[in-house]
Amino acid sequence: MSISAKYFPDEPTAPKVVTTEFPGSVSVKAQKDLAKVFDARAAYFVADYEKSIGNYLVDVDGNVFLDVYAQIASIPLGYNNPALIEAAKSDKMTRAIVDRPALGNFPGKDSAEIIADVLKVAPKGQDKLWSGLSGADANELAFKATFMWYQAQKRGYTKAFSEEENISVMKNQAPGSPELAILSFERAFHGRLFASGSTTCSKPIHKLDLPSFKWPKAQFPSYKYPLDKHEAENAEEDKRCLAIVENLFQTWSVPIAGLLVEPIQSEGGDNHASQEFLQGLRDISLKHGALFIVDEVQTGVGATGKLWGYEHFDINPLPDIVTFSKKFQSAGYFFHDPEIVPNVAYRQFNTWCGDPARMILAGAIGKEVLKHDLPALTAKVGAYLYSKLEALQAKYPKYIQDLRGKDRGTFIAWSLEDGAARNKFLSDMKTVGVNIGGCAEESVRLRPTLVFEEKHADILVAAIEKVLSGY
Amino acid sequence: MSISAKYFPDEPTAPKVVTTEFPGSVSVKAQKDLAKVFDARAAYFVADYEKSIGNYLVDVDGNVFLDVYAQIASIPLGYNNPALIEAAKSDKMTRAIVDRPALGNFPGKDSAEIIADVLKVAPKGQDKLWSGLSGADANELAFKATFMWYQAQKRGYTKAFSEEENISVMKNQAPGSPELAILSFERAFHGRLFASGSTTCSKPIHKLDLPSFKWPKAQFPSYKYPLDKHEAENAEEDKRCLAIVENLFQTWSVPIAGLLVEPIQSEGGDNHASQEFLQGLRDISLKHGALFIVDEVQTGVGATGKLWGYEHFDINPLPDIVTFSKKFQSAGYFFHDPEIVPNVAYRQFNTWCGDPARMILAGAIGKEVLKHDLPALTAKVGAYLYSKLEALQAKYPKYIQDLRGKDRGTFIAWSLEDGAARNKFLSDMKTVGVNIGGCAEESVRLRPTLVFEEKHADILVAAIEKVLSGY
Repeated sequence: MSISAKYFPDEPTAPKVVTTEFPGSVSVKAQKDLAKVFDARAAYFVADYEKSIGNYLVDVDGNVFLDVYAQIASIPLGYNNPALIEAAKSDKMTRAIVDRPALGNFPGKDSAEIIADVLKVAPKGQDKLWSGLSGADANELAFKATFMWYQAQKRGYTKAFSEEENISVMKNQAPGSPELAILSFERAFHGRLFASGSTTCSKPIHKLDLPSFKWPKAQFPSYKYPLDKHEAENAEEDKRCLAIVENLFQTWSVPIAGLLVEPIQSEGGDNHASQEFLQGLRDISLKHGALFIVDEVQTGVGATGKLWGYEHFDINPLPDIVTFSKKFQSAGYFFHDPEIVPNVAYRQFNTWCGDPARMILAGAIGKEVLKHDLPALTAKVGAYLYSKLEALQAKYPKYIQDLRGKDRGTFIAWSLEDGAARNKFLSDMKTVGVNIGGCAEESVRLRPTLVFEEKHADILVAAIEKVLSGY
Repeated sequence: MSISAKYFPDEPTAPKVVTTEFPGSVSVKAQKDLAKVFDARAAYFVADYEKSIGNYLVDVDGNVFLDVYAQIASIPLGYNNPALIEAAKSDKMTRAIVDRPALGNFPGKDSAEIIADVLKVAPKGQDKLWSGLSGADANELAFKATFMWYQAQKRGYTKAFSEEENISVMKNQAPGSPELAILSFERAFHGRLFASGSTTCSKPIHKLDLPSFKWPKAQFPSYKYPLDKHEAENAEEDKRCLAIVENLFQTWSVPIAGLLVEPIQSEGGDNHASQEFLQGLRDISLKHGALFIVDEVQTGVGATGKLWGYEHFDINPLPDIVTFSKKFQSAGYFFHDPEIVPNVAYRQFNTWCGDPARMILAGAIGKEVLKHDLPALTAKVGAYLYSKLEALQAKYPKYIQDLRGKDRGTFIAWSLEDGAARNKFLSDMKTVGVNIGGCAEESVRLRPTLVFEEKHADILVAAIEKVLSGY
């Protein structure tokens, strides 16, 4: 029995479209009610999570969408997954919700086990974690660890802070508050708080009017597709971009303490990195004594056909920090070097230090992911889907350009000729019962759950063809 | 029947101390296990939340502590409160946990109701909210709203962004990423991320080695206690500090978009603000076209004897933004001006836009707080406790200095002569069965739950006297 059939005996066998407008009239009314108390302008429709199941998201009008967007790439095992419902109804979860601890000061008797369960899904060799609350938070906590580590390398890990550092930091001045930078890339997305926002560089709307740290942006490779027909050019592109990174390390006005990269730039257009590029970054970070931070907020937990996106590559030595959120439903960073734990307590600290309730859920997700080897499933289903999309690409080359994600599970994307064409396509897909998302200005990204199977892929491909055949 | 007796028929009637060392041997072993996967150096002991009940926190050694610290001021209604357990076990909560929505894009059919329930506890006149995940996050989201509002005042709320803004922001440069500041105070605590950390100014350990925004810090009044014997001096202190704020607005190198203040600086030593000071700040913010942001992360939700700390004062016009977290178990900010919603969608936005699971809990907390008028209870119990502490102060003036929090519910604090004496006192309180916390270097802060009653106050006062009588 397939995993989705096992989890969801009542999963619909096909989408059902009952309205002619999207959102439908019931949703429009519900959005108006919501708008009285909340900024609901970005809502596509109002969902009925009670009726949603597996890979199908139901709206309040009764439309049943095959969902290949999955709450912006963050539903791991389908809606109302019974294994997660069991975890959510457990006494352990109830206590984590009603007796939320200040985890750093008053951990509970089950805290070590809860955290160890999360670590069972960590990338190989990354045996420690620090917990946070969202992808942006995870990245900023990683930045904090990075800056503390960087200064500890200069100062000596165990050396006490100087009087001058203690005084100047209270004025937000050096040496206590040093000028240091995180290097990231054009088209990157790492979150929307102030430091994470300073590393994000995909769309102006994310950060207009916000003050920022003046941190450097390198260029991320833009490969020619299909990759196997442009190997030489793409190798040149890697070299060009690595030279930019090296140059920034040598010339930037303040020291660069960390190098931050997504293995696949996700919000920024599903721009994939190569083995050579990622290893090149690792080498540069080592050469300059900076930490190598891999942002796996979107690529983590199985969708690419590996548990973690960077595990498609042989990166030596291992990345120093790997951040997570989204599909794990819990956020934070993994690491292995004991010196990434700051030298004294209360430096990487806050009231809650994460959320054990969300960590319990992450442990339950991880258990299912490992038990059913879901990365193997996404690899298999992704290969099947990719080949179908390649065939569609041959038929509709104008609407499926630069197909990306071969051998990357269901983490697949393609481009249309411009933003208007892309937006029309996303919108038209609703008329055939598919909820699908975009990235960058002109790309479509597939982000189904980890229990998206060949039967769902068939429905998706048929729906795409139905839309494209009408163009 | 008292509210604690109603919620907790099995609540202990007194602390029980079973170890001679703190942490006890079972806790020490559990901390060692935890340390393999997590930075556990700040742990006081390992708690047994299953056995904890009401105002009593139990550790894994079997010590039963009367808890007047309550997870750094964040347990609202006592451990294992039955009303919250009911909310945690509801189907609505289960769905919020397993089907966590991207709330901005795909709100659920119950989202409007969930948010409206949270708003029932909002400060009067603040009828909208934006949701986040922690106190630091709440403040930074408020900063984002503030900067967007400030620029909209200059640009025109509905005016489109210029090409120059759209291009420069991607380079983290003005005009798209303008140089703007938030003004905060010395001894303030607003969180530990990079922007919130830039406004925090209570202890070096919070921010050493972290880059920061160069934002101005004014001085917060240091009053002489008891207040009623130093009215003239304290009025002068208000004037002195307000003049500093006014001067910073006039002279700071970049425009100040927001003025951020805690009604009682909590981490920074329980430094109270007066009516005159807060109204003075409100006036200055209006005069200079900045938003007035009140950080109620620690003072909010009833502990001060009012629902919100600033409601002790008559501030006109109302604060623009009020941030919350901790006792509400959900985080974000309240506001009332429609123009604090940015002009277009996707500006104040992120994947999750808060956590409906935590909002459901906040709604349940709010319902109990209103139903049982818990601010009235904390006012009554606080007055009772304060008078007992005043009597102790007369007896042990060296160990209870500058008693603070008269008419502020159970939000009470005092100072000892130095950090060593304070730390010894906190530690000694464990030997008599009380878990109690400090703030600043030399202060003790009381942060019991909202269901801390006179009977608990009697136990606390007797325990304090027992410790002090041995000095």
